[in-house]
Amino acid sequence: MSKGVISKDEDYSQWFNDLVIKSDMAEYSPVRGCMIIKPYGYSIWEKIQAVLDGMFKDTGHSNAYFPLLIPKSFFSKEASHVDGFAKECAVVTHYRLKNDGEGNIIVDEEAKLEEELIIRPTSETIIWNTYKGWIQSYRDLPILVNQWANVMRWEMRTRLFLRTSEFLWQEGHTAHATADEAIAETEQMLNVYADFAENWMALPVVKGRKTANERFAGALDTYCIEALMQDGKALQAGTSHFLGQNFAKAFDVKFTNKENKIEHVWATSWGVSTRLIGALIMAHSDDAGLVLPPKLAPIQVVVVPIYKHQEELDNISAYVDSLKKELKAKGISVKFDNRDTHRPGSKFAEYELKGVPLRVAIGSRDMQNGTVELARRDTKTKETTAQEGLAGKIESLLEEIQNNIYKKAFDFRAENTTEVDTWDEFKRMLDEEPGFISAHWDGTSETEQKIKEETKATIRCIPLDNKQEEGKCILTGKPSTQRVLFARAY
Amino acid sequence: MSKGVISKDEDYSQWFNDLVIKSDMAEYSPVRGCMIIKPYGYSIWEKIQAVLDGMFKDTGHSNAYFPLLIPKSFFSKEASHVDGFAKECAVVTHYRLKNDGEGNIIVDEEAKLEEELIIRPTSETIIWNTYKGWIQSYRDLPILVNQWANVMRWEMRTRLFLRTSEFLWQEGHTAHATADEAIAETEQMLNVYADFAENWMALPVVKGRKTANERFAGALDTYCIEALMQDGKALQAGTSHFLGQNFAKAFDVKFTNKENKIEHVWATSWGVSTRLIGALIMAHSDDAGLVLPPKLAPIQVVVVPIYKHQEELDNISAYVDSLKKELKAKGISVKFDNRDTHRPGSKFAEYELKGVPLRVAIGSRDMQNGTVELARRDTKTKETTAQEGLAGKIESLLEEIQNNIYKKAFDFRAENTTEVDTWDEFKRMLDEEPGFISAHWDGTSETEQKIKEETKATIRCIPLDNKQEEGKCILTGKPSTQRVLFARAY
Repeated sequence: MSKGVISKDEDYSQWFNDLVIKSDMAEYSPVRGCMIIKPYGYSIWEKIQAVLDGMFKDTGHSNAYFPLLIPKSFFSKEASHVDGFAKECAVVTHYRLKNDGEGNIIVDEEAKLEEELIIRPTSETIIWNTYKGWIQSYRDLPILVNQWANVMRWEMRTRLFLRTSEFLWQEGHTAHATADEAIAETEQMLNVYADFAENWMALPVVKGRKTANERFAGALDTYCIEALMQDGKALQAGTSHFLGQNFAKAFDVKFTNKENKIEHVWATSWGVSTRLIGALIMAHSDDAGLVLPPKLAPIQVVVVPIYKHQEELDNISAYVDSLKKELKAKGISVKFDNRDTHRPGSKFAEYELKGVPLRVAIGSRDMQNGTVELARRDTKTKETTAQEGLAGKIESLLEEIQNNIYKKAFDFRAENTTEVDTWDEFKRMLDEEPGFISAHWDGTSETEQKIKEETKATIRCIPLDNKQEEGKCILTGKPSTQRVLFARAY
Repeated sequence: MSKGVISKDEDYSQWFNDLVIKSDMAEYSPVRGCMIIKPYGYSIWEKIQAVLDGMFKDTGHSNAYFPLLIPKSFFSKEASHVDGFAKECAVVTHYRLKNDGEGNIIVDEEAKLEEELIIRPTSETIIWNTYKGWIQSYRDLPILVNQWANVMRWEMRTRLFLRTSEFLWQEGHTAHATADEAIAETEQMLNVYADFAENWMALPVVKGRKTANERFAGALDTYCIEALMQDGKALQAGTSHFLGQNFAKAFDVKFTNKENKIEHVWATSWGVSTRLIGALIMAHSDDAGLVLPPKLAPIQVVVVPIYKHQEELDNISAYVDSLKKELKAKGISVKFDNRDTHRPGSKFAEYELKGVPLRVAIGSRDMQNGTVELARRDTKTKETTAQEGLAGKIESLLEEIQNNIYKKAFDFRAENTTEVDTWDEFKRMLDEEPGFISAHWDGTSETEQKIKEETKATIRCIPLDNKQEEGKCILTGKPSTQRVLFARAY
């Protein structure tokens, strides 16, 4: 167990918090529920951004930027939307401070806004108000726009990365001529998210649709990817919404179609946030610290020299320089930690805590023998290996680590996904062996709500690849045609 | 003159606004003074970000993210800082809306914040409050952090890109053990900005220091880069501040130095914003539209086919495919506009308006002759040239265009920078031949203020490369040892 980090079996929630803080990822700020993303944490966000941004562009999207502040009246135009977000909005009411004459800085009541402005919790309203000016004809469609931005939802119970009042995210907002095209876009972006989660984050996800209860406020259909954390709780890692014509109607966005008829435009929106970093940590890490998949690790390889005398270090450094060059040529990020203020053991602990996938240690004996010591973070195994061909070996090891981390998470999920057919077993599983529970449900919001009230478990999704199967609702015994995925969730 | 764009000689300000709107760069939003950056404008910001971010990382900086909202009390801790920003702050006072029972969404007065929160106009206060927790010893220094973020300054008179209530920027905030090191950082970042302006934006800049009047609120010294726009007004394109120990003292940030003594930390901050896009447009564009330097142009080359029959287009397309491959291999961005909904002439006008540096037009006769028509946006010249070796020719032409745009701006500035020695001539020049005026000044804030009141001209900077020279103040006749740079400014 790493210094200052509690064991995850003892207190999972505290373990997560300790990890985030001790690994220098993030910390709370003095502003309620807002976090400071420190350079190490932010560099993971930069990697996530770079990969996703490339995927968005490859699927034809461009970035744009819309205002932070939304007039209250816009925000209220789509009824279910405002119901969903009004309870957690930061409201700007004034635009000036002043000195009260006694040296106190106070709000200047003369600078009160005529209409209050809301800090965006999401941007559908301001964007659809804008699209009204961009769209006249089918020739103006589709509009495929994404925005990287900060958003704010005033949260009472917050948790670093997973639920903070301000967070960073991307929000795609697209406009289409037909429902089919919008649905295809919604599904395409869900697949992009799933691809990213599995192939970059090493995080297996279930693709599915939300029930009406769990839908985005204003959507006709919400698709999601759901992942399982090591404590058996689910985490929604991304959502993609088919918004139908709701926002087009609220903002009067119409177009002339090819048949010269006027119609409302069809919409989608889709987003992932800094929450992904929380998922990444929770899914793979252990009591010794972070375990990062190599494809998203800010430092993929760290090299630690072990020496007493300067000549020894010089000798090691000369070799490391050439190794670094070879690794960089392969696109592998490497750090040579030659600080003389820290002992090797303390460096080992630091990089273990920070989840660096591979550690290379080199001493004078290694230099004589033409070897290094290579340590894997994921398996905690060490081996002595030849300097010759090391760069190539590191390259394939990183790939192996990426695959191994995925496999471990995949196996964990398989072990913790259970088909359950009785209410007693359902409750017992949630308490004693939490995980994904695949169970029959009668399809009503009432039953879903009752299950949530009694067990805190929600329907995470109706998996897209569900097979049709006769069964009885776990709570009411009414007939059901498919299983859905339940879990307690973050 | 392009459709919908007024001539810049007729109304420079309107010309700029027309250009921004017609070229699809940006538009105003319904929120006072806030803008919507459209995909074409945002793609230039993405290029600016990518280049600058690389430069920041090459000089040892990392990115991080700090909260959008700053408690009012923090904001007030540094006296001159709050004086500088209090008059233009957006203030958050509530965190919830509610339905008033009659279907109106109103602010919930029960959700009033105990302490108002300010939307960051700049982040020194929240960052230095954070650094207090990060710094104990000289071993924790320097801290070299940058943030890409949105900020808000409530402006009464706004102009797209140049002055908007919300804008995007980067703000570097560094912490150092000594004043010398902090000053060296301040100067280094000024040089990074100048390098970027000149070598990427093709914008010649004067590096200098601000007078006490024009300094950043809370700085001991403000360095800046100043550029000259085509209407003879100056534009401050970037600033780098030596903050001394002001913020460290306000937030009690101390460290133990190598001699085991406790000292306050030394600070810098530096930033550039989406204003750079305004500068880019204003500096180079003409009545036909944008003129973009190739290194920042989202599309560097556009290819327009000229044809009547599908077979002709097929023939042209086959050639363009191979040309595109060659250009992409050279890192040149190219768009093949084969839309059949627009005529070639309308496409030509569109890309002229959008400032695409090079246009290639290809018809069937060209295909027979093995030629293309090549048109330069900067010089508006056309030539017929061989298809053979075209990619290489385009590559060197883009470089030539970049240099030519810079040279044009450089020559313009040289022609419009004048040494003036009398007050009458000073006033006459400002009205009749506006530009940079190099003149003697007695060094007092009073004189500077009087000149500003009488002429609206300000001291843009005291150039770093100033030679010492005896002279008399242009207004008061008092002795002066150097010329400073005056202009009316954006």
